Amino acid sequence: MHATVMHGPGDVRYEAVEDPKILKPTDAIIKLSATCICGSDLWPYRGLQPQDGPAHMGHEYCGVVVEVGSEVRTVKPGQFVVGSFCLSDNTCPHCQFGFQSSCEQREFMTGAQAPYARVPLADGTLVATEEMPDAGMIPHMLAVSDVLGTGWYGAVAANVREGGTVVVVGDGAVGLMGVMAASQLGAGRIIAMSRHESRSALARDFGATDIVGERGKDGVARIMDLTDGVGADSVIEAVGMAQSMQQAMGVCRPGGTIGYVGVPHGVSFDGGQLFFKQQRMLGGPAPVRRFLPDLMDRVLQGRIEPGRVFDLTLPIADVAEGYRAMDERRAIKTMLRVEE
Amino acid sequence: MHATVMHGPGDVRYEAVEDPKILKPTDAIIKLSATCICGSDLWPYRGLQPQDGPAHMGHEYCGVVVEVGSEVRTVKPGQFVVGSFCLSDNTCPHCQFGFQSSCEQREFMTGAQAPYARVPLADGTLVATEEMPDAGMIPHMLAVSDVLGTGWYGAVAANVREGGTVVVVGDGAVGLMGVMAASQLGAGRIIAMSRHESRSALARDFGATDIVGERGKDGVARIMDLTDGVGADSVIEAVGMAQSMQQAMGVCRPGGTIGYVGVPHGVSFDGGQLFFKQQRMLGGPAPVRRFLPDLMDRVLQGRIEPGRVFDLTLPIADVAEGYRAMDERRAIKTMLRVEE
Repeated sequence: MHATVMHGPGDVRYEAVEDPKILKPTDAIIKLSATCICGSDLWPYRGLQPQDGPAHMGHEYCGVVVEVGSEVRTVKPGQFVVGSFCLSDNTCPHCQFGFQSSCEQREFMTGAQAPYARVPLADGTLVATEEMPDAGMIPHMLAVSDVLGTGWYGAVAANVREGGTVVVVGDGAVGLMGVMAASQLGAGRIIAMSRHESRSALARDFGATDIVGERGKDGVARIMDLTDGVGADSVIEAVGMAQSMQQAMGVCRPGGTIGYVGVPHGVSFDGGQLFFKQQRMLGGPAPVRRFLPDLMDRVLQGRIEPGRVFDLTLPIADVAEGYRAMDERRAIKTMLRVEE
Repeated sequence: MHATVMHGPGDVRYEAVEDPKILKPTDAIIKLSATCICGSDLWPYRGLQPQDGPAHMGHEYCGVVVEVGSEVRTVKPGQFVVGSFCLSDNTCPHCQFGFQSSCEQREFMTGAQAPYARVPLADGTLVATEEMPDAGMIPHMLAVSDVLGTGWYGAVAANVREGGTVVVVGDGAVGLMGVMAASQLGAGRIIAMSRHESRSALARDFGATDIVGERGKDGVARIMDLTDGVGADSVIEAVGMAQSMQQAMGVCRPGGTIGYVGVPHGVSFDGGQLFFKQQRMLGGPAPVRRFLPDLMDRVLQGRIEPGRVFDLTLPIADVAEGYRAMDERRAIKTMLRVEE
């Protein structure tokens, strides 16, 4: 088959590779219904993350099981499945504690920007639907796999409560999904920090009650003003830069919580500052598996349409253009159609 | 009257000072029933914290109200009261959120190592008992004011749960109170890191199920071994040094929580490390006021005896010896008897 391979910064090719095979008895092979490009794929694309040789890209996926290893028990060929970008056994103590992204056997999914992909730890990772979803559901189901799951975890980690005030730092795909999650979790007020018109519009559609375009000190001042000088109960940090983290810490009230889901690049904290700010913090790669059944139900019931975050859809053969569009911020997130 | 004044590192004197007076209509004057020396008093005593001129020492207190300002409504002369080392109005949004130690009007108590003291923000800070407690209750009531309140907050911040596994880093007075708090909150296993025999014994009395004397990598390995490689659900960090924080982070499970109540000195965190460790963190000066009524009840009902943490009692005139004994680690915590 052909699949997406990154040969180096800026060099993404759709090229002939070996078909994926069952390598371990706990593997499954799926035929992708659709796949997509993640904001985190841009780190190596931009040369900001070192890479050892050509890499098979893609970790967001949904599709139909075509083959399973001899030990796989919970999914079978013909079923439609969604999995997390973190592969987990879902039985170890960390998984049982709801932190499948720290599973003792954790691996990160790769090679999903392709027509077929191997999913290790299939039993612990994949969740099947009862019926084959309609084609219109595919973008939404695909979004659950990482971008919604990560935004959702950001909201849960930020302790979003019924009626609470939430600030979302970052208007990328994950931040927008954080807005959706906060809304679903009953937040009373959702302030999205965004200065891009199309993203602000989407944030409003997803439940944002206020948009703040200012950044830095002005952004903090504006939000403190909006919250009568108190600050937010919950802050979702969905960027991972020093400035965005400062922003988050600047608007979180004492005793409030920051859920940070942007992988930190160049972020550090001073212990004394953290202490006196008295803000609860929880971050990490999202344990999407914890949320999968619930999020898939919400999609199938038509309660949420997270696939709206895909504002560009291309045939997978044009994946290189998909990367370019996201790199140049012409697209929030690119979905790739998989047709053989 | 005479009171405790620190003139510089190592120079504590019990000397003549002006009697405290009502300065604001929200003040109260109390006659101390007893007072004590805090571990944090040792920072300036050891010259590790800069000081502007002579300082009136002492922020842990209980006693009888002798005078109140014209606006004080909730306490009156003749009542026995306990207050927090953080003075708060108990009405602002941060107080209402349970974080009185970040009160909009927050001040820190001073001058309590004395026979009489002024307590600002009396209505929001002091809690009165219905009856005058017996003399035997005084050490326990005094401990509530800071050392127990801080250990308690550490346990609450660390999310201690019924049946959970808790590690307490630090066997000073606050760490020992953290053990007591974890026990009261129903922890199933409490591992105290301690290498001092008398402190270990007290930790066991307060509810520790295991004592780990090793530190550094050996300490982490021992605790990982005790927890079947999983780590602790909750960690109370009660020291505030880089090594003790590393210790805490080394033994907390993914998704677990670190409550840190040792004021950080030279502690910093790398964002990426914090992210992938996926540990929840909450620290800060303890909002003791939130817990005062409950903790005073527990003392009065005889359910806890936090005053046992005082292993040296001196007349207040000998306060300098009390500081020396704690500085030289001859005493865990010194109580000062106040007799006129």
